[in-house]
Amino acid sequence: MEGILAERRNDNDKFFLFVVDNYFKGKELERRLPASSADVVRFIDVDPHEPTTEQIDTLRDEVLASRGLPAGVIGIGGGSIMDIAKAVSLMFTNEGSSVLYQGLNLIKKPGIYHLGVPTISGTGAEVSMTAVLTGPVKKLGLKCDWTVFNQVILDPELIASVPVDKWLYTGMDTYIHCIESENGTLNNAYSHAYAEQSLKLCREIYLGENSGQTPDNDDKLMVASMMGGLSLTYSEVGVCHALSYGLSKILGEKHCYANCLAFQHLEDYYGEGVAELKQMLKTHKVELPQGLSKNWSDETITAMAEVAYNLPHMWNHAIGADWKEKITIDTIKELYKRM
Amino acid sequence: MEGILAERRNDNDKFFLFVVDNYFKGKELERRLPASSADVVRFIDVDPHEPTTEQIDTLRDEVLASRGLPAGVIGIGGGSIMDIAKAVSLMFTNEGSSVLYQGLNLIKKPGIYHLGVPTISGTGAEVSMTAVLTGPVKKLGLKCDWTVFNQVILDPELIASVPVDKWLYTGMDTYIHCIESENGTLNNAYSHAYAEQSLKLCREIYLGENSGQTPDNDDKLMVASMMGGLSLTYSEVGVCHALSYGLSKILGEKHCYANCLAFQHLEDYYGEGVAELKQMLKTHKVELPQGLSKNWSDETITAMAEVAYNLPHMWNHAIGADWKEKITIDTIKELYKRM
Repeated sequence: MEGILAERRNDNDKFFLFVVDNYFKGKELERRLPASSADVVRFIDVDPHEPTTEQIDTLRDEVLASRGLPAGVIGIGGGSIMDIAKAVSLMFTNEGSSVLYQGLNLIKKPGIYHLGVPTISGTGAEVSMTAVLTGPVKKLGLKCDWTVFNQVILDPELIASVPVDKWLYTGMDTYIHCIESENGTLNNAYSHAYAEQSLKLCREIYLGENSGQTPDNDDKLMVASMMGGLSLTYSEVGVCHALSYGLSKILGEKHCYANCLAFQHLEDYYGEGVAELKQMLKTHKVELPQGLSKNWSDETITAMAEVAYNLPHMWNHAIGADWKEKITIDTIKELYKRM
Repeated sequence: MEGILAERRNDNDKFFLFVVDNYFKGKELERRLPASSADVVRFIDVDPHEPTTEQIDTLRDEVLASRGLPAGVIGIGGGSIMDIAKAVSLMFTNEGSSVLYQGLNLIKKPGIYHLGVPTISGTGAEVSMTAVLTGPVKKLGLKCDWTVFNQVILDPELIASVPVDKWLYTGMDTYIHCIESENGTLNNAYSHAYAEQSLKLCREIYLGENSGQTPDNDDKLMVASMMGGLSLTYSEVGVCHALSYGLSKILGEKHCYANCLAFQHLEDYYGEGVAELKQMLKTHKVELPQGLSKNWSDETITAMAEVAYNLPHMWNHAIGADWKEKITIDTIKELYKRM
């Protein structure tokens, strides 16, 4: 990594911004960071909430005010850190709040150089062209060609220490990406080939006698995550992600976990996939909670359903151009009530 | 494509260099070229020989002298055209003859913008980080990070009219890339996942009841070629490509065909692959010539063996670090004599 950074160190105001998952503070990786004394290193706790527009704006404004424009942003962590690194790299060159740019191709200028180093695999954020942010109104990504990392370093040793539940939920994000990408109107030879291979890898990692957190499977999960991310980039996600965004926006559930909460009840849309995902959870003795919706008010459920309904690109892919004839707020509320 | 080019049209001396396979001269595609009157369009006949260092130097010198530095190079054609576009884009910014840069990381500066539009799939040149050139001494690529196309447009309609023998030979190049990438010391989770999926696609395209030149298979071949190219980029080719380079350098055989001539006799190295490739040829009633070596002098065979032997990166991958203990010029001569 040092070699890569050396080439760019003299760009802009000659320092790098490192955004690193707080999990690594005080650990071996902190000592190995190739940060010079000129660089800004921010450890970010991603547990309290998913990345927000406010968080990105504040980070950008603080760094610009104190140090100027970085030569580049290096993100080291999971999907949230990847999204923060991608989003802030764009916001260094695009004026105003990131809220203005939630959507497709709203960003006006290329961002600064950004490098992704995933330490947990599954979300595909290391290769996808979106940086998902939760704003005051929407949970929606900054999506454009410039969102994609300039470079990515995949080192499976970094993902070796991921706790089993996170290993499973993030892996299931990959699995769900592939099932959703494949099952919809935008699926094509490219997204299909990537999904097919990624699913094969997921089965090797999470099912059968060689499944589990082994070095071989860590290698495979890095590749599966990347391929799942490329599959959805050239196709689209579907029903599960729409519902999951509702759970995250209204209840603050983390993305990968929220996906699992929703997906288990989507037999009507992804029958075989739901059965297989349940098998994977069972293999690794991870149980998802049931009956959650008993504690949700109708107001909460309606609010989540409205978030989910307002993601037409997902419904359009999953259901078809006539999705509004088949999917209503009530349909979606029923799905939430199954949880 | 016009949208993509419009963004760059004002770079450098404000014109694009199109390098287009001569096959398309006078055909529908010529009329559809998004070239303005300011652009330089060169139709190149790739049949007489593979791309040469002299050809690249001359093209670069002529364009620089008559028009200056292009905003970018657009390559539209098969593997040879892809390699010409990649090589000339680098040589516009690197001084002297391209002979100086045959090898790994010898290029000193990034090239100009280059866009690849493959019209025949198989070589993987649309995604690989090498631009293979035949020079006065070596057949060897300009290989570095900057060789890779800035953008690639994959349109399967462009490959629909490829004649059956070329469709087969170029597809077999992909097949051989995967077999060689997988069977060697540099194979890894990334190259393996790409090879595995590409091989699956090759089997769908070339074997069994749904094989043949169908629109579905044209889609698949584009993806297979790309995945095979990515597999070898992160691993390496092997014995077949070493022998094939000898056939091309000394006898002028075209790359994909030369690969097939060599691969059919490599049972000792790639047993299952050789059997399957023969099955694919048989399915499509394409026969490879036998007994060619009867007409080759010992001098010719020795010359080819020396070209092949002098590709240590391929032998190192295929055989191992101790390859010189196992492979001699005589071993290689024996392989040529089987052809």
